[in-house]
Amino acid sequence: MVRTILAAVVLCAIFMSRGEAQAQAPLNLMPMPAKVQSGNGRLLIDPSFLVTITGHKEPRLDGAVELFLTQLRRQTGMPPIDMKVTDSASATLVIHCDGGTRETQQLGEDESYRLEIGNSGARLSAPTTLGVMRGLQTFLQLLQTTSGGFAVPVISIEDSPRFPWRGLMIDAGRHFIPLDVLKRNLDGMAAVKLNVFHWHLSENQGFRVESKKFPRLQAMGSDGLYYTQNEVRDLIAYARERGIRVVPEFDMPGHNTAWFVGYPERASGPGPYEIERKWGVFDPAMDPTREETYKFLDTFIGEMAGLFPDQFFHIGGDEVNGKQWDANPKIQEFMRAHGMKNNNDLQAYFNQRVQQIVSKHKKTMLGWDEILHPDLPNSIVIQSWRGPDSLARVAKQGYRGLLSSGLYIDLMWSAERHYATEPISGAAANLSPEEQKRILGGEACMWSEYVSPENIDSRVWPRTAAIAERLWSPQDVRDVSSMYQRLEEVSQRLEWLGLTHNSSYLPMLRRIAGTDDISELKVLADVLEPVKDYAREETAIEPATSAMPLNRMVDAVRPESATARRFANSVSELAAGSSRPGTEAQVRSLLNRWRDNQLELQPLFEKSLLLKEVAPISQNLSALGAAGLAALGYLDRGQPAPAAWVTQQLEMVEQAKKPQAQLLLMVAPSVAKLIQASAGQNASSLPAK
Amino acid sequence: MVRTILAAVVLCAIFMSRGEAQAQAPLNLMPMPAKVQSGNGRLLIDPSFLVTITGHKEPRLDGAVELFLTQLRRQTGMPPIDMKVTDSASATLVIHCDGGTRETQQLGEDESYRLEIGNSGARLSAPTTLGVMRGLQTFLQLLQTTSGGFAVPVISIEDSPRFPWRGLMIDAGRHFIPLDVLKRNLDGMAAVKLNVFHWHLSENQGFRVESKKFPRLQAMGSDGLYYTQNEVRDLIAYARERGIRVVPEFDMPGHNTAWFVGYPERASGPGPYEIERKWGVFDPAMDPTREETYKFLDTFIGEMAGLFPDQFFHIGGDEVNGKQWDANPKIQEFMRAHGMKNNNDLQAYFNQRVQQIVSKHKKTMLGWDEILHPDLPNSIVIQSWRGPDSLARVAKQGYRGLLSSGLYIDLMWSAERHYATEPISGAAANLSPEEQKRILGGEACMWSEYVSPENIDSRVWPRTAAIAERLWSPQDVRDVSSMYQRLEEVSQRLEWLGLTHNSSYLPMLRRIAGTDDISELKVLADVLEPVKDYAREETAIEPATSAMPLNRMVDAVRPESATARRFANSVSELAAGSSRPGTEAQVRSLLNRWRDNQLELQPLFEKSLLLKEVAPISQNLSALGAAGLAALGYLDRGQPAPAAWVTQQLEMVEQAKKPQAQLLLMVAPSVAKLIQASAGQNASSLPAK
Repeated sequence: MVRTILAAVVLCAIFMSRGEAQAQAPLNLMPMPAKVQSGNGRLLIDPSFLVTITGHKEPRLDGAVELFLTQLRRQTGMPPIDMKVTDSASATLVIHCDGGTRETQQLGEDESYRLEIGNSGARLSAPTTLGVMRGLQTFLQLLQTTSGGFAVPVISIEDSPRFPWRGLMIDAGRHFIPLDVLKRNLDGMAAVKLNVFHWHLSENQGFRVESKKFPRLQAMGSDGLYYTQNEVRDLIAYARERGIRVVPEFDMPGHNTAWFVGYPERASGPGPYEIERKWGVFDPAMDPTREETYKFLDTFIGEMAGLFPDQFFHIGGDEVNGKQWDANPKIQEFMRAHGMKNNNDLQAYFNQRVQQIVSKHKKTMLGWDEILHPDLPNSIVIQSWRGPDSLARVAKQGYRGLLSSGLYIDLMWSAERHYATEPISGAAANLSPEEQKRILGGEACMWSEYVSPENIDSRVWPRTAAIAERLWSPQDVRDVSSMYQRLEEVSQRLEWLGLTHNSSYLPMLRRIAGTDDISELKVLADVLEPVKDYAREETAIEPATSAMPLNRMVDAVRPESATARRFANSVSELAAGSSRPGTEAQVRSLLNRWRDNQLELQPLFEKSLLLKEVAPISQNLSALGAAGLAALGYLDRGQPAPAAWVTQQLEMVEQAKKPQAQLLLMVAPSVAKLIQASAGQNASSLPAK
Repeated sequence: MVRTILAAVVLCAIFMSRGEAQAQAPLNLMPMPAKVQSGNGRLLIDPSFLVTITGHKEPRLDGAVELFLTQLRRQTGMPPIDMKVTDSASATLVIHCDGGTRETQQLGEDESYRLEIGNSGARLSAPTTLGVMRGLQTFLQLLQTTSGGFAVPVISIEDSPRFPWRGLMIDAGRHFIPLDVLKRNLDGMAAVKLNVFHWHLSENQGFRVESKKFPRLQAMGSDGLYYTQNEVRDLIAYARERGIRVVPEFDMPGHNTAWFVGYPERASGPGPYEIERKWGVFDPAMDPTREETYKFLDTFIGEMAGLFPDQFFHIGGDEVNGKQWDANPKIQEFMRAHGMKNNNDLQAYFNQRVQQIVSKHKKTMLGWDEILHPDLPNSIVIQSWRGPDSLARVAKQGYRGLLSSGLYIDLMWSAERHYATEPISGAAANLSPEEQKRILGGEACMWSEYVSPENIDSRVWPRTAAIAERLWSPQDVRDVSSMYQRLEEVSQRLEWLGLTHNSSYLPMLRRIAGTDDISELKVLADVLEPVKDYAREETAIEPATSAMPLNRMVDAVRPESATARRFANSVSELAAGSSRPGTEAQVRSLLNRWRDNQLELQPLFEKSLLLKEVAPISQNLSALGAAGLAALGYLDRGQPAPAAWVTQQLEMVEQAKKPQAQLLLMVAPSVAKLIQASAGQNASSLPAK
């Protein structure tokens, strides 16, 4: 019965491009599938929902279906005794899987799927369990609330990813990130079809994995904050259940201070060493000239190669400043003896030796841009923090590459800016198809100088969902306004997974304010963003350290202010004379709120140390509100604002734009636009109220 | 240095009664300590905070301090490498513990402590680790936000509990409650100094513990939803680290349907049996006349007595309807042969036999009121769902008792009503001191017909904190307005422990609405409460079952509406002519919001099935808002409202008071009060605006 109806749907389906499908019905899918054909009607999802699995069976598939049902129950509020797997042919959802997956998930395994939903049943078919996993996430995203209850729309979807490597890197070295936090982020990754968790496991500030061969690594280099080998295995299994590979990174020969606390003899300088508390690039580096170094690494990499089953092994390789090498006469002697001209040559030698070790342990080496060197075999993969042009060179030289430039989510960019980061762009766009294939995809990188277990989710999500779409969906999926609309929906959905990117916000504001009533503080915080790029270091009064609390306003506010973004859109409409009914009233209401907010917030500033630094920003917001209202007044009256007033107000806005307490007042540019509009534009372009 | 300063504080301290201390400074402590002496100044809490432990040492104490530091870091946003235990005498907090605790926590172990905080250091001393645990929770509650940073006030506290048994029962039988949910509730219990977790582990709807002796109990009686023995041990260890005993309950000879699915031969009727899905009292009961029953129970209780180390073993014993006994000729024959007049006699015989088994396994039997029978030894403990008078009879007869009547938190009472539930009241107030000592305390009972992992926290918290205060603090601590003020603060603090009583609210509303923008829905939900007592059963359109989703508005709204409570206070002030400045404006603003809310909410009702049933309530709220505004108008004009209008409006309010969709519109009585005031009172009693 189900199959007959589905067949009918399929017969009618002429797949349209995604653009046409989007016009038909707003689907809150992210990443947008390759092909979508919307139909009429819906399939109700109620407690009687049943799933049956046909075709190839494996435990990983059963597990994926259980995870799906758990999530479906959560999103609909059904108890665990409802919504079951059955053998019955009358199941609501029939899953057909053609074949199994590898014991260790491989780069490039088939992730395609086909999802057909009719009025009385649905069918998900895929060549592999991985495809089923991806299709089940699409099904969950299709869930809607209707007048008849929960439902998914009648639809046909054919989908497969554009890039085979779609990753999220989390730096657990600079700040330790507990296992449960990683797990909920893996849930988030699975929800948006990311498939590689790149686990940055060691840094100057901490070595984070138990080594049984070299136990002083964690005993002396981690402050007690490390993952046991059992925990590592647990996380890898958790990731596998979600179709995610786990690639470990042990950065070398730099970024190793925490290693040298327990093993100072591996360094190029005399020691002793302490765990680094500050951020930056530091002098300590492994000694590439001693055979003991390679013996150590052979044993260490052998141990870790056994612990981490993935084919790839990331050796970092970035940011060696060479100072310890320059200062060590034995190393200088070695370089002369071997005809090495500079430290690059020495590092290239080190990388070759390490590559041989990695290869001996049956792994493929991966490293940052710096490791690229013609002496290394074509099998290695380069992760580029330099950009698509660098990536194009990598591909031209026959290497495979990953893009991370433009995907550093610690830099507090907008989702739009990350979304525009395209691996196949710049010089890469001119590569031959074969060369382009060497660009495997990309990774969002969560460097952790300024993240804690409390706020890391808010730095990763929801923006990483936009990156996931860039890496999965067809290249022509790039409508920014559609992206934002879907991103907001996805953001709420991710909360059902236990991610705290939204829920941690108010408790952090309450802690800053020292009171539960934070409605005014939220008005202010909602229009703030942390300073961008590396401005937090550059504007710090004292250098930050890993011992510093991350409990300030800059740690609580989101990387991207949705309020400011929407306000900017409204102001653009107003200034262009193309606003919809109600827009001006909304703008006016916000401006009023901002102008008056300072008065209500004032008493709090005196009661909380953490709030004090924010007081001038609140005053600026108040001034922006007043200026915006005045500008609206001029616009309403059709009377150009006096030039002197405009000049004065724009100066005020320039002041308000400057970072304060490492925060940016994101509505300032829009207020400037309003002021400029009030100077040069008459009211006829404003809508009738 | 620290000690000298502390000594000075202590020398000055003349302990005042709690009432006087409260007048000095608002302390958000709950339960309120027995003796509090507030001083001047504060002790700053920053990343350099250090703790040292002197006196007796045991791992449980070290663990308690680590938990304390974790929580302190969370409340202040400090990283894990800050705030350490040290050997240094210059530690910020010196903990002195005189002696250890028992391997298995005993009823009545000393929980007293003394906390002295000076300007530059603090000292916590206690006879036992349990006392240290309680004192550390007080320290956490003292944390404040100040202009200088986080701080605790200079203070001296001497504290000990009024009752030795302060419990929370969670029914994991009717709805399975996962281990992580129990753990976060144990964290909440520890925060408010509760010390007994009563784990209701079997019901007609589910048997929830792995039995290795009788594996069909969980295999056939739990839907796969049970705790393994390792999980049970894990939970008991978790509780012990927090100073909480774990008392298991296996209800018998009734409430056993789930047992009989796998072991039908234990029942008094023929079977076969299925897991019960409905709620209520059912016929199946163990057969008390067969020796096999006692052999089974001997083996089962022996197994469980080994798994649960606590001295007490709860056998339930409630609600046997006797129908299976009446219908079984062999049982009737047995009763005649043994001269039993009725089923009570038969159950008493059963209880005696079970008591002997429990006693043989070195446990003390505990049961509900029904088990009380002169043939049972004085060692047993009676948990009363009948009330203080029943409890007084228990004590008079030489038994020990616990109060749970008035503490059923599933009945959706206000915190105030639970707070007024006093174990030493009614007939119990007239007991001799020795008899009163037999009243060990009480337990909040979370029966789980209508709770899921998602909303259980909101049914337990924050109201249970008020119950905890009743059981810990001196009897004269009973100021309701102070209780509510502190309860709101405690409620926010509990969120730092991972409890979801606040955070689950908005996601549930979003799911009901099917949209993220729920500001109007929240306005409505904020003034709703679930119907009280057993009205949810009585007003159900179809009987509820364990398979029904708990995703309706009645499942999302809180047991007690803070908005309605505050509105009632404001209206009372207005009606009494004693309102403070701003009260009338606040009342008017709320009434306006309610009147207009329906218009904005209307579109949502048509889009969501789960919202449909709420539509009439929204209309009622709108009518209440309009009526209240009109009444305020009459009051303002000093003109009595026309009698006909008053009658008509009060009829409208009566309609609005009626339960709809098992919800109560809690602001209706206050609007009635406003209408009545407008009829009989002139405006002179209203404040100038």
